[in-house]
Amino acid sequence: MRIARFAAAGQDPAYGIIELALDGGENPDSIAVITGDPLAGVPVNYTGERHALADVRLLAPVIPRSKVVAVGKNYADHAAEMGSEVPAGAPLVFFKPNTSVIGPNDPIVRPAGVSELHYEGELAIIINRFCKEVPPERVPEVIFGYTIANDVTARDWQHADSQWSRAKGSDSFCPLGPWINTHLTVAEAEDLGLETRLNDEVRQQGSTSQMVRGITELVSFISGFTTLLPGDVILTGTPAGVGAMADGDTVHVSIDGLGTLSNPVTGQ
Amino acid sequence: MRIARFAAAGQDPAYGIIELALDGGENPDSIAVITGDPLAGVPVNYTGERHALADVRLLAPVIPRSKVVAVGKNYADHAAEMGSEVPAGAPLVFFKPNTSVIGPNDPIVRPAGVSELHYEGELAIIINRFCKEVPPERVPEVIFGYTIANDVTARDWQHADSQWSRAKGSDSFCPLGPWINTHLTVAEAEDLGLETRLNDEVRQQGSTSQMVRGITELVSFISGFTTLLPGDVILTGTPAGVGAMADGDTVHVSIDGLGTLSNPVTGQ
Repeated sequence: MRIARFAAAGQDPAYGIIELALDGGENPDSIAVITGDPLAGVPVNYTGERHALADVRLLAPVIPRSKVVAVGKNYADHAAEMGSEVPAGAPLVFFKPNTSVIGPNDPIVRPAGVSELHYEGELAIIINRFCKEVPPERVPEVIFGYTIANDVTARDWQHADSQWSRAKGSDSFCPLGPWINTHLTVAEAEDLGLETRLNDEVRQQGSTSQMVRGITELVSFISGFTTLLPGDVILTGTPAGVGAMADGDTVHVSIDGLGTLSNPVTGQ
Repeated sequence: MRIARFAAAGQDPAYGIIELALDGGENPDSIAVITGDPLAGVPVNYTGERHALADVRLLAPVIPRSKVVAVGKNYADHAAEMGSEVPAGAPLVFFKPNTSVIGPNDPIVRPAGVSELHYEGELAIIINRFCKEVPPERVPEVIFGYTIANDVTARDWQHADSQWSRAKGSDSFCPLGPWINTHLTVAEAEDLGLETRLNDEVRQQGSTSQMVRGITELVSFISGFTTLLPGDVILTGTPAGVGAMADGDTVHVSIDGLGTLSNPVTGQ
């Protein structure tokens, strides 16, 4: 099931199920409206209303009530291009606040004074319940589904500051979407092609199979020190090929089975 | 006005106004219940109900909907004891998630494997509205009030990790309270004595006048990159004298005009 959050013209945000076109392909073309918030644990109830996907504005599929936890240097080729290595000890984790989250097609806003604004295409895990110290064998039970993230990074601030709060946590620095796929197993989610294009040019091409710490280890490690809430999001790291975006560019992150997350870049 | 969040026996959490004893001193002894959430912008309405302070359990006066933003190395004497200096460039800021917040008398839980669990007594600023890029002259307008924080730190994790997420953001690592004082001006809040005691021993003794970056600069800088929400919290740094807490200890942080925030320390 692909669950999206959207706004139809003149209406409040709602949730819906993405439906594929009847041509037998993978192209979604409509959205069937459901009641309530699927992350609140209620069963999916269709209202009977349906929109053409082209007629609605997709929103970030989730705004976490608590946090986005992101993982740095989790692909060896990206760690190498940053002149470093995958950390040998604990996974490198950092927080992005919920105020950094934007949805599909929302602009990534380059803060004044930032010259190196980088994309980082990533697989995102959505948590489905309050949980703490999740043992590896129970990790699948706490995952609601998967979506795409762009871990936008002000590289100049990242190099200037010891902590990455403004480099990674500024407003608009966490595009999420276009929807949440709830039907992937952990093994399937760890074997998806990932591609980032800047305008028409392919910049990142990798697979989630290249993650050094897998989904099970990450969820178990992170929930070991911080309680996760329904709707909290974990970003799993980016493959090689990161680079700068300029005002007027559009960045597209595609992951097999999850669609494409596109965002334009603007100055302030 | 001193606003507290509390739970009376068998009742849901509520807000109340702390009232001083009629002995002419500074000792609060009762709480007058008010309706609703004062951070939602509604006027204070007394329900007429009143409790003896000894009969209620005080809770964290706020659980941020978005984030706690904390400032590192903002007192020269503390930076020096950590073997470093106050950053010359941007203030050193980091996030503590809302899941790290606990209230007065709640236990600080030492995670398994952490041997150096440090207290850091700090002045905390509570934000009263959605705001972004607050110019210095308008900072007083976005401050709801002040409370006390303990920026609990797993010093061994802080030294092991490049980012301080688990060192500073673990569950129970952000005690807040005992209440919010809404009547201090910025100038008054920048001239308060601060004392931390471990059990009966004084460990930190300083004044908020020693902050290198003042309240105005911090709120303006932080709101420059991240939208602040009503109830978001900014911790302003700690003076010298940080040190380790052992299981069974109780740590008390006192700030003039704000009371005392006490928390016991336990193992897992």
